[in-house]
Amino acid sequence: MRSRRDFLQKITVSAIGLPLIQRYDTTGIQNFIHPSTQNKVLRVAIMGLGSYGTRVADAMQSSEKAKLVGVVSGTPSKIKDWQSKYNIPEKNCYNYENFDRMKDNPDIDAVYVITPNALHHDQVIRVAKAGKHAICEKPMAINAKEGQEMVEACKQANVKLLVGYRMHFEPKTLEIIRMRKEGAFGKVLFFQGLSGFRIGDPNQWRLNKELAGGGAMMDIGIYSINGARYMVGEEPIWVTAQETKTDPVKFKEGVDETIMFQMGFPSGAVASCLSTYTMNNLDRFFLNGSEGFAELQPSTGYGPIEGRTHKGKLTQPHKTHQTVQMDEMAAIILEGKQPVVPVDGAEGVKDLKIIDAIFQAVKAGKKVEVQV
Amino acid sequence: MRSRRDFLQKITVSAIGLPLIQRYDTTGIQNFIHPSTQNKVLRVAIMGLGSYGTRVADAMQSSEKAKLVGVVSGTPSKIKDWQSKYNIPEKNCYNYENFDRMKDNPDIDAVYVITPNALHHDQVIRVAKAGKHAICEKPMAINAKEGQEMVEACKQANVKLLVGYRMHFEPKTLEIIRMRKEGAFGKVLFFQGLSGFRIGDPNQWRLNKELAGGGAMMDIGIYSINGARYMVGEEPIWVTAQETKTDPVKFKEGVDETIMFQMGFPSGAVASCLSTYTMNNLDRFFLNGSEGFAELQPSTGYGPIEGRTHKGKLTQPHKTHQTVQMDEMAAIILEGKQPVVPVDGAEGVKDLKIIDAIFQAVKAGKKVEVQV
Repeated sequence: MRSRRDFLQKITVSAIGLPLIQRYDTTGIQNFIHPSTQNKVLRVAIMGLGSYGTRVADAMQSSEKAKLVGVVSGTPSKIKDWQSKYNIPEKNCYNYENFDRMKDNPDIDAVYVITPNALHHDQVIRVAKAGKHAICEKPMAINAKEGQEMVEACKQANVKLLVGYRMHFEPKTLEIIRMRKEGAFGKVLFFQGLSGFRIGDPNQWRLNKELAGGGAMMDIGIYSINGARYMVGEEPIWVTAQETKTDPVKFKEGVDETIMFQMGFPSGAVASCLSTYTMNNLDRFFLNGSEGFAELQPSTGYGPIEGRTHKGKLTQPHKTHQTVQMDEMAAIILEGKQPVVPVDGAEGVKDLKIIDAIFQAVKAGKKVEVQV
Repeated sequence: MRSRRDFLQKITVSAIGLPLIQRYDTTGIQNFIHPSTQNKVLRVAIMGLGSYGTRVADAMQSSEKAKLVGVVSGTPSKIKDWQSKYNIPEKNCYNYENFDRMKDNPDIDAVYVITPNALHHDQVIRVAKAGKHAICEKPMAINAKEGQEMVEACKQANVKLLVGYRMHFEPKTLEIIRMRKEGAFGKVLFFQGLSGFRIGDPNQWRLNKELAGGGAMMDIGIYSINGARYMVGEEPIWVTAQETKTDPVKFKEGVDETIMFQMGFPSGAVASCLSTYTMNNLDRFFLNGSEGFAELQPSTGYGPIEGRTHKGKLTQPHKTHQTVQMDEMAAIILEGKQPVVPVDGAEGVKDLKIIDAIFQAVKAGKKVEVQV
């Protein structure tokens, strides 16, 4: 067995066994890029072959820069299905016991962790220790402390950690952000986010506190949190929150059904949001400024986003979010590209700090200050 | 000078000097109707000849059942203008010192009080004591205690007290209420109300605590409070609220600029609302239930209301709100008609109890229980 020191020495050589070069890009952020992987594709293994994993795998078939080459699953039959469907070689198939061995596999660059929330922390740290870049579905963890540990583990292992914020690459969303930055809405005053759906099967992991780490907030409410931040363009300084539960059988202790929450920003802008597992198709963002407004509805669903502003309807064409995300994440990892809105681990930790504060505000029944 | 006893004896005879008959309608609510005024018009004096008073006066020209016959104003030139514009006889013109003399004027049935909020209480009580029915613009008073005193004074004087809830007669609003009652939305789960505009002249009475009794909440936020109640069809049992102020010079101590507030209802439904004087044209109601939704946008503006539900666009034709309101209020006063949504003093007090609780919740920084 190798010592930790040996391990660290190995990964500073490179995740794929090639010498690293150091580069300073225009933003001053230090990036490590593998010269040999420039203009190549990011070879990705998906960990967790559930419905969202399948959606990402399908979308990746149209990606120019990311390629599905491996899988991690606890279910041999799923692995077999994926192998034949996506042409995955046996040597790139792992289970949850042996995926650390990936460190000796030069044909996998990154692992996309698409498992229940509470498992992300340990799994991402193991991926990092195997010298692979980690892409982690949101929420990146079940609290900010765990998220921060993941960030540090990836830093220490010299691998990138990205969080599956597909909306950060969505064209209509980016157009609104561009307009806000150029002052098209004037002084930003108000954001409203509705994020919810009616969840089905009461036995799914999303309703199991041990696996989900919470309820609707972790899964869908996070869209309104994250959306508030990129739409307003500031970080909140306080939150208030009110929880209600209409079905305490389906939504057990620690699994939130419906939470209304509010945030205040340094400029004086405020946000009013809803997170719910008990209402149909709530998916709307609204941004109001002194000179105009923006509306996205649907705002975060998988299908085409619809948007309008005081200047008219947004017409940027739809492209499958997960395809765009994988192309962009490949460019971030392989070419050091800087996205308009961050998708790194630090970004994920910010959302978790706010989620922590929301749960605290529900408990305390009063305003909680946050520093993200 | 007549004694209070004489006065009370007089008004129990009738506001217009005719014997009252008592009637029990199908809802079991006791009504007093003047047989002689059935199929007649309600003869109205407007108190307060500002911009909204003018709007009501203009709208009343198209009313079939209500007729503008008198004025109360502190500005002689305004009275002159109105007299010529609306053909008002000299004997029906009063000022704020002498309008109690209206009790000796048999040609006025009701007074519509459209003055600054803080004046409503004393003015409505004086109108009642003059034996005239009172219609009072919303908010009916600046707190629930004053509102209740007005209700009692009108009861004691045996005159009706109605509050200017014009939306209670608006056809698209009523269609949503009808649909909700027949269960078209299933279990009601969520209401969202945005009520706000950017207020202009910093010297107007609406920004003067002494006259307005508050700020945006009294004036525009009340639409979201009232709307939540008629859209959800329940009375709230708790409120939470968060106040922010971006311009403390324009919005002085006690004059609220922006308040986000939330309400919980006995069924488990919740409401999330915004009241503001600093954002442009926020006027949207959204009701979400287990089986469908309703949206009104604009929801309370003077122009045509636009609405849609999961079943499609609402197509009820627009009619000037104030015309419809005056026709309906005449029918309530003259014929004992029961509106679908109450517009009486008790209804006004309910909104004020909620406003009281919202201000209390802002101060306390936590949830406040309400009983309306």
